[in-house]
Amino acid sequence: MPDSVKYLLDEARIPKAWYNIAADLPVPLPPVIHPGTKRPIGPEDLAPLFPMDLILQEVSTEREIPIPDPVRDIYRLWRPTPLYRARRLEQALDTPARIYYKYEGTSPAGSHKPNTAVAQAFYNKQAGVRRLTTETGAGQWGSALAMACQFFGLECTAYMVKVSFEQKPYRKVMMQTWGAEVIPSPSERTRAGRDILERDPRSPGSLGIAISEAVEDAATHEDTKYSLGSVLNHVLMHQTVIGLEAKQQMEMAGDYPDVVIGSVGGGSNMSGLTFPFLRDKFNGNAVRVVAVEPEACPTLTRGDYLYDFGDTAATTPLLKMYTLGHSFIPPAIHAGGLRYHGDAPLLCLLYHHKYVEAVAYHQHPVFEAAVQFARTEGIIPAPEAAHAIRKAVDEALICKRDGMSRTILFNLSGHGHFDLGAYEAFLAGKLEDYAYPEEQVERAMRELAAIQP
Amino acid sequence: MPDSVKYLLDEARIPKAWYNIAADLPVPLPPVIHPGTKRPIGPEDLAPLFPMDLILQEVSTEREIPIPDPVRDIYRLWRPTPLYRARRLEQALDTPARIYYKYEGTSPAGSHKPNTAVAQAFYNKQAGVRRLTTETGAGQWGSALAMACQFFGLECTAYMVKVSFEQKPYRKVMMQTWGAEVIPSPSERTRAGRDILERDPRSPGSLGIAISEAVEDAATHEDTKYSLGSVLNHVLMHQTVIGLEAKQQMEMAGDYPDVVIGSVGGGSNMSGLTFPFLRDKFNGNAVRVVAVEPEACPTLTRGDYLYDFGDTAATTPLLKMYTLGHSFIPPAIHAGGLRYHGDAPLLCLLYHHKYVEAVAYHQHPVFEAAVQFARTEGIIPAPEAAHAIRKAVDEALICKRDGMSRTILFNLSGHGHFDLGAYEAFLAGKLEDYAYPEEQVERAMRELAAIQP
Repeated sequence: MPDSVKYLLDEARIPKAWYNIAADLPVPLPPVIHPGTKRPIGPEDLAPLFPMDLILQEVSTEREIPIPDPVRDIYRLWRPTPLYRARRLEQALDTPARIYYKYEGTSPAGSHKPNTAVAQAFYNKQAGVRRLTTETGAGQWGSALAMACQFFGLECTAYMVKVSFEQKPYRKVMMQTWGAEVIPSPSERTRAGRDILERDPRSPGSLGIAISEAVEDAATHEDTKYSLGSVLNHVLMHQTVIGLEAKQQMEMAGDYPDVVIGSVGGGSNMSGLTFPFLRDKFNGNAVRVVAVEPEACPTLTRGDYLYDFGDTAATTPLLKMYTLGHSFIPPAIHAGGLRYHGDAPLLCLLYHHKYVEAVAYHQHPVFEAAVQFARTEGIIPAPEAAHAIRKAVDEALICKRDGMSRTILFNLSGHGHFDLGAYEAFLAGKLEDYAYPEEQVERAMRELAAIQP
Repeated sequence: MPDSVKYLLDEARIPKAWYNIAADLPVPLPPVIHPGTKRPIGPEDLAPLFPMDLILQEVSTEREIPIPDPVRDIYRLWRPTPLYRARRLEQALDTPARIYYKYEGTSPAGSHKPNTAVAQAFYNKQAGVRRLTTETGAGQWGSALAMACQFFGLECTAYMVKVSFEQKPYRKVMMQTWGAEVIPSPSERTRAGRDILERDPRSPGSLGIAISEAVEDAATHEDTKYSLGSVLNHVLMHQTVIGLEAKQQMEMAGDYPDVVIGSVGGGSNMSGLTFPFLRDKFNGNAVRVVAVEPEACPTLTRGDYLYDFGDTAATTPLLKMYTLGHSFIPPAIHAGGLRYHGDAPLLCLLYHHKYVEAVAYHQHPVFEAAVQFARTEGIIPAPEAAHAIRKAVDEALICKRDGMSRTILFNLSGHGHFDLGAYEAFLAGKLEDYAYPEEQVERAMRELAAIQP
């Protein structure tokens, strides 16, 4: 049996430009709206939070944005990342399908997140910023930004959801090892934090509260900006290095995908892999593009396409997206990175116009696929990435049933070294499948009518 | 400033044969001795524990042993591993030295251990073995063997030191995810385990006890063999893929090391990198080779060159090695993989005859170097590997003092994703530097006189 195959690119083939899908959209992207005026916001509205280079990327319609050399130099520490043909998994499934995956877990932070963290740190340093603030849940994004800031000599302050800070200390230690200041949120540092603590001194915190604290910290300090790890256009664009490399590697393999799959929390890893393939689709290619989400937080498959706040505390501008309502708090599934009430506006637009499909899974079948993958291909996947594996396996099983050989490509966005507690629960038969929280979502959705422009 | 550089080999340049240093030894290796007869053991003495192919490798004097294709096929999942020029670290140190490191943390198990685990699983499968047993402390070796067994359809039973099983569950979960059975040791499974439990029902276990259980389990089951992760000649030989690749990568860089450095627990990662360079040294090259060990377990720098048992329970044949006495239990430093009372006989021989130097460090300066490395090069190193970093940094600082540009190469044998508790202690200023445990060593050494042949 031919064994699993790794396709490695030469370093010279790390992309020299990001792909900006805004140049090729077949339908226009709805504007971002100011919640007070209900009118589109302009670059100046974002200036307190982001450096102008990133704001210009956010609204750019240039197809290619050059990747600055210092960013590529850091990418080279782990990029190009490998693309694998998962022949051992194919054999285990006894499928005629060809399964490929792009592996982003080789970065020092263990996921795709540094692709944008490094770019954001660079542009902030260029703009004379001294310090970046951000929020982080379990710490995947915070650790990527901490590392990136360290590379460029920026200070980094990460507001970490207090319950994670206390219960999952290892990502916190990772951030500190890379020199970041990690603050359990809610904190006494900000008015937002103090308000929460006054009402509830034992608040466990939430991502929404942490965003409010990070934004306030940046907005109230001259030399400080704010950084976000997903959702925004420029963040998704930075991630297109994944798909641009994968296209070259599929060419090396002499193949092209019939279906491209990514898991979706805010949308950055999925968009990073799929946007370069969607460009082909806009030009008539039949490639299918599939977003995979958790049944406990099924934004695309069960949400509505409306304007909503990006954060739970309702402090951001309004974004047109599939949403379950910003006040909806998803159940505590192990794929913490997929617990987001909305999704990136670019991805939502393309889903709305049927360029992208979506499917939702319970965590039990997701972990079944994760363990099968670990036992055949070796790598223990992050629970987030395992959602994409589940869908890839299901597509391969359809090929088996139909006796069809299709080409499947998915993004393995990170490893599961910090998620072994979840594997322990699964292997012990103690993993809970949360039902779709219909009532909570309906309650959260009712609030949205009032804020539509 | 030119940034850190990664040297990647084409897959075709994964070595096709391991390098067997026994072919080139300038001095003969003392025989392994039977503790009862006090005479050299023969291959048949090892047959209950190992398949004949591995026993023949253990005693072979052929310079090159071909790597079977199925082993190379699995190596290709993560090999060739990258070699880096650590320019960012050089800049932070302001040194004229050129610092290179070979990074073995890219394997799915996170260390160099799969290089031999995969080979051992292959030869056992070839010999019709159904199941492998082994011991593991914190789980680095056990997880590598679990993965390797899964690849070849072998069952794997890992006796894990009970205190680690209970306090450090994540490597246990990793082994289970790869399908292994993990038994807290001492257990009721073996006579050795039952004897201990009878005397001390609450025994926390030790590596020595776990070895005794794994060996007994293999010796008392027809279809079961035993597997060891370091010390033995064939294990060190399997690791030479590290150095054979590194030599090709140094050639790509147009450079050759003045000094090659590795951390030593049993000796496998250090030997894997350095043996191919020692071959050049035997032929007159001036390259220095340095072993780095913890001050809390300073086998080479403070031990004596004597015959001793490989395990604490005194059940193995006698090996001529630098030892602190098999009954010596090293203090609980965070670099658990370096807590071994002896060292590989091949490495000890070369140290004894001054082909290899050795140095010992306390864990505080080791973690200082580890954090500096993480902040400049990105990768968070395993505490074991950080010993080699400390020495590389010290060599680079000597170059700075002397205004000399030397070339330094070290082995970064694994990442520290499962060691962040140790980083937490260091960053909080709570890391303890254990003094050299002189009295305990002297007590253990006194027992050795009686067993010398």
